[in-house]
Amino acid sequence: MTALASSPGARDSGSSASTAAPTDLEIARAATLRPIEEIAERAGIPADALELYGRYKAKIDVARLPDADHRGHVVLVSAISPTPAGEGKSTLTVGLADALSRAGKRTMIAIREPSLGPILGMKGGATGGGRSQVLPMEDINLHFTGDFHAITAANNALCALIDNHVFQGNALQIDPRRVTFKRVMDMNDRSLRDIVIGLGGPTQGVPREAGFDITVASEVMAVFCLASSVEDLKERLGRITFGYTYDRRPLTVADLGAAGVMAMLLKDAIKPNLVQTIAGTPALVHGGPFANIAHGCNSALATTTARRLADIVVTEAGFGADLGAEKFMDIKARYADVAPSAVVLVATVRALKMHGGVPKDGLAAPDAAAVERGFANLARHLENIRKFGLEPVVAVNRFGTDTPEELDAVVRLCGSAGARVAVADVWGRGGGGDGGDDLAREVLAALEEPGTYRPLYPLEMSVEEKIATVVREVYRGAGVEFSEQARRTLAQIHENGWDRLPVCMAKTQYSFSDNPALLGAPEGFTVHVRELWPRTGAGFIVAVTGTLMTMPGLPKVPAAMRMDLDDDGQVVGLF
Amino acid sequence: MTALASSPGARDSGSSASTAAPTDLEIARAATLRPIEEIAERAGIPADALELYGRYKAKIDVARLPDADHRGHVVLVSAISPTPAGEGKSTLTVGLADALSRAGKRTMIAIREPSLGPILGMKGGATGGGRSQVLPMEDINLHFTGDFHAITAANNALCALIDNHVFQGNALQIDPRRVTFKRVMDMNDRSLRDIVIGLGGPTQGVPREAGFDITVASEVMAVFCLASSVEDLKERLGRITFGYTYDRRPLTVADLGAAGVMAMLLKDAIKPNLVQTIAGTPALVHGGPFANIAHGCNSALATTTARRLADIVVTEAGFGADLGAEKFMDIKARYADVAPSAVVLVATVRALKMHGGVPKDGLAAPDAAAVERGFANLARHLENIRKFGLEPVVAVNRFGTDTPEELDAVVRLCGSAGARVAVADVWGRGGGGDGGDDLAREVLAALEEPGTYRPLYPLEMSVEEKIATVVREVYRGAGVEFSEQARRTLAQIHENGWDRLPVCMAKTQYSFSDNPALLGAPEGFTVHVRELWPRTGAGFIVAVTGTLMTMPGLPKVPAAMRMDLDDDGQVVGLF
Repeated sequence: MTALASSPGARDSGSSASTAAPTDLEIARAATLRPIEEIAERAGIPADALELYGRYKAKIDVARLPDADHRGHVVLVSAISPTPAGEGKSTLTVGLADALSRAGKRTMIAIREPSLGPILGMKGGATGGGRSQVLPMEDINLHFTGDFHAITAANNALCALIDNHVFQGNALQIDPRRVTFKRVMDMNDRSLRDIVIGLGGPTQGVPREAGFDITVASEVMAVFCLASSVEDLKERLGRITFGYTYDRRPLTVADLGAAGVMAMLLKDAIKPNLVQTIAGTPALVHGGPFANIAHGCNSALATTTARRLADIVVTEAGFGADLGAEKFMDIKARYADVAPSAVVLVATVRALKMHGGVPKDGLAAPDAAAVERGFANLARHLENIRKFGLEPVVAVNRFGTDTPEELDAVVRLCGSAGARVAVADVWGRGGGGDGGDDLAREVLAALEEPGTYRPLYPLEMSVEEKIATVVREVYRGAGVEFSEQARRTLAQIHENGWDRLPVCMAKTQYSFSDNPALLGAPEGFTVHVRELWPRTGAGFIVAVTGTLMTMPGLPKVPAAMRMDLDDDGQVVGLF
Repeated sequence: MTALASSPGARDSGSSASTAAPTDLEIARAATLRPIEEIAERAGIPADALELYGRYKAKIDVARLPDADHRGHVVLVSAISPTPAGEGKSTLTVGLADALSRAGKRTMIAIREPSLGPILGMKGGATGGGRSQVLPMEDINLHFTGDFHAITAANNALCALIDNHVFQGNALQIDPRRVTFKRVMDMNDRSLRDIVIGLGGPTQGVPREAGFDITVASEVMAVFCLASSVEDLKERLGRITFGYTYDRRPLTVADLGAAGVMAMLLKDAIKPNLVQTIAGTPALVHGGPFANIAHGCNSALATTTARRLADIVVTEAGFGADLGAEKFMDIKARYADVAPSAVVLVATVRALKMHGGVPKDGLAAPDAAAVERGFANLARHLENIRKFGLEPVVAVNRFGTDTPEELDAVVRLCGSAGARVAVADVWGRGGGGDGGDDLAREVLAALEEPGTYRPLYPLEMSVEEKIATVVREVYRGAGVEFSEQARRTLAQIHENGWDRLPVCMAKTQYSFSDNPALLGAPEGFTVHVRELWPRTGAGFIVAVTGTLMTMPGLPKVPAAMRMDLDDDGQVVGLF
């Protein structure tokens, strides 16, 4: 257990600093990067498996790795139901890995690539923060090695082929009103959400309603992140249902013959990207599907590659554990050899106070009683993790404003719940410093007795039953209500033989329920499934609750407006 | 002068082979590539100026090049009015450079990057063909180093910021009906030509008519290719006119404050890309604007960088000399230090026969008389090159079907016209073999007495006069007719002070006139200027004649359908 002395410098979140403190970009610039060949060598990656992208990034040709049977432990970092600012899960992931490296363990990170759209909008990047970042953050947060661009191109090549097929005689009898597959762009561009295309007369195409999603919402992204090999990638691409015929038969990419060209466009993207943390820990940053309409973790290939190379792989799943961890267990761990040995649940005093009923503008004031009330949220996540056969370790991501009484309350309550817990200051002191030592110790202790992963439900259950099981066992709702439209899709799912796919819940991350205002540990609520989206390529059925944004918009003053390139070619204003 | 013996193996064009001959992809695969560090070292590029992208591609940090005053000769490769199959200009460019290297000259190539859209559609790549290719052709023809993706992102970030500005209160009073700047995608996708965006109600944006162009048609691409530095890039981006206010005042990117973020998104793209030919000649492949609505050459930075490193830079301009060479002289050479010392005009027996009146399906039959008749086209291009103060060298790109009589006719007529000429077989034998030796000898002789470049018209002329001068002096038309709409834009150009910009003619490449069926050396025709597009960032006024496609479509059976990735991750079916 860590000492509870207050750390210097208040800050707002795991990814932004007060005006006095240096920015993430400043901290990142001050770090000394090692040549990526050196990082690779220490990670056991042979030189001929390395494809350099500049000095500090490389793609790994997995086929050239030594063919070892080695499988390191997977430590999954998840979180309690988050506040809108986030609980610093990426920062904790990076910091924990640095602390494990510092403890002498052969450790590797596997996390998602950031999406450009939100970066130009308002969100911070996904490269951690403070002293726990992956570098070079400017590159990773901008085009990186071009993976998202390749995924965008593969997605949009399919769309161009679909509309061209309709235009050129429509042998497949594609119903233009029932093309479900959308174009994508890695941009926050609300005016592309609902559009009409093919206007201008008979030589310009066939008019139809359409729209763009952001690239991270593409099914190609989900496929990319679940594929275990080039062969599997092509098969999954071929299984994508892009629309329906006039007589409502589903049409796949294989029917159109487009899986080959799509896979070709992904030939380099599919290779995991190697970078390093500030402390020099190797990190695979690869893939990044949405955490609502997809499963929200880095590519399966990155995680399995990291397992081959390291003894401990620290990885992350999006949103709180009711979403991210559940999908990791019920989707990713079914399709890839990535079952976790331990789960870290990130909590903050601030979020616990919010779950304890404190309004947003009162979170700065000390309130240990609110922390105790809010613990109900964390307690439920702890119980849920155990349902997957795994023991959780709580990581309290420490902020300068946390009081010793508040931190004591969390630690004490975790103890009562029988959970390991540590307070970590990986943002301020770094996991490469001593900010993550206590957490590393607890994680290592947990790995002494690794859990035995089991999924929540068998695939043989019907889709309705699977959704009902997640709602009952994880969310603790009273029941599920399917809209008329969702019921119709359920019938279609059954008819098309898609019943055996796992479900991917698209729900607000702020509450166990589908109402973002219902904080803490609510009960007795009903979850409303508005739509079901079969994602037959990725291999899951998305259950959409509430309203869902698959193409974000820009705020009144976008972050982009402060970004610049100085005359020396240096980035300005990125975080 | 070369011997006229027939070379083995008939073929159809400079970029595709008969079924018996190996494909470009097969020839490329059989070549042994040297590590790009080795190519760089021989080219005089210090190791610390090199940013590797895999083993065989690198970006050059121009700021780290030795600050020499060295300026190599520029040899511009252009062509006669082409056939739809093209005359093999890129192949000739690569082969000539290889032959010059073979002759012991320190040579470098500067050419355009290929666009993905046409590659998935029907066109060959822009990496040359046969034994005269730049490698690795799979990578260069697919995502390469991500430059086009970065340009796409910068273009579309601007579009998202424009529509967001309108949505968030529209302080600039942007008239949504007069936004002239379009979104882009590097795809042949006809159904995105004319679209309506912002549908779905008040929270989804402001509905307006819009459209996508292909990325190579973006003004950001033109700006990128004319910028001389990061500073100049930002200034040019800031000068882009994206639309007009309700009271018709022009609005620039600088007014919106978006030049900084756009430049930031181009921070790596702006660095020239180094690759190698099959024979090991260093090549900078960088940028690739359309040759109709833009100037159609590689980036100015690539050409000036190559001049600093080599004694001879072989570069290329799109389409025939009436378009590509004229724009090189009147646009690119005004903005960048790239004035040519010599111009190579590529001709084929096949194209000359077409200009001599032979229909397309009769081109295979020997017809020396038709070659003589068609020479009128080449003769006029020869005269035109001299108007820019330069002496042309004719390169006959030899095909297996050419007869000695036909080749003799071309050589004889060039002699009568006082022009240097050589027959080259760089496709079949390679410039690294002896296929370009004669051509190299003629070019070196021409460089003994380099010409003195002069533009065709002074910038002080009005836009009308500039267009009239090009039509009179280069096309030899009787006059120009401006549409009502073009006349209105002329008034606006004058009002906004854009009169001093050079003109960029968007005309069919198949004829000197604006009628693609008028082959040979027509006279007495009128050129019809339908629209004028001010490109204030790139720095030219596009004069649109005839109909123009800025977003191509896919054919009935797109080339994409035969492309694939095998289980070893190797590309299949790309050419």
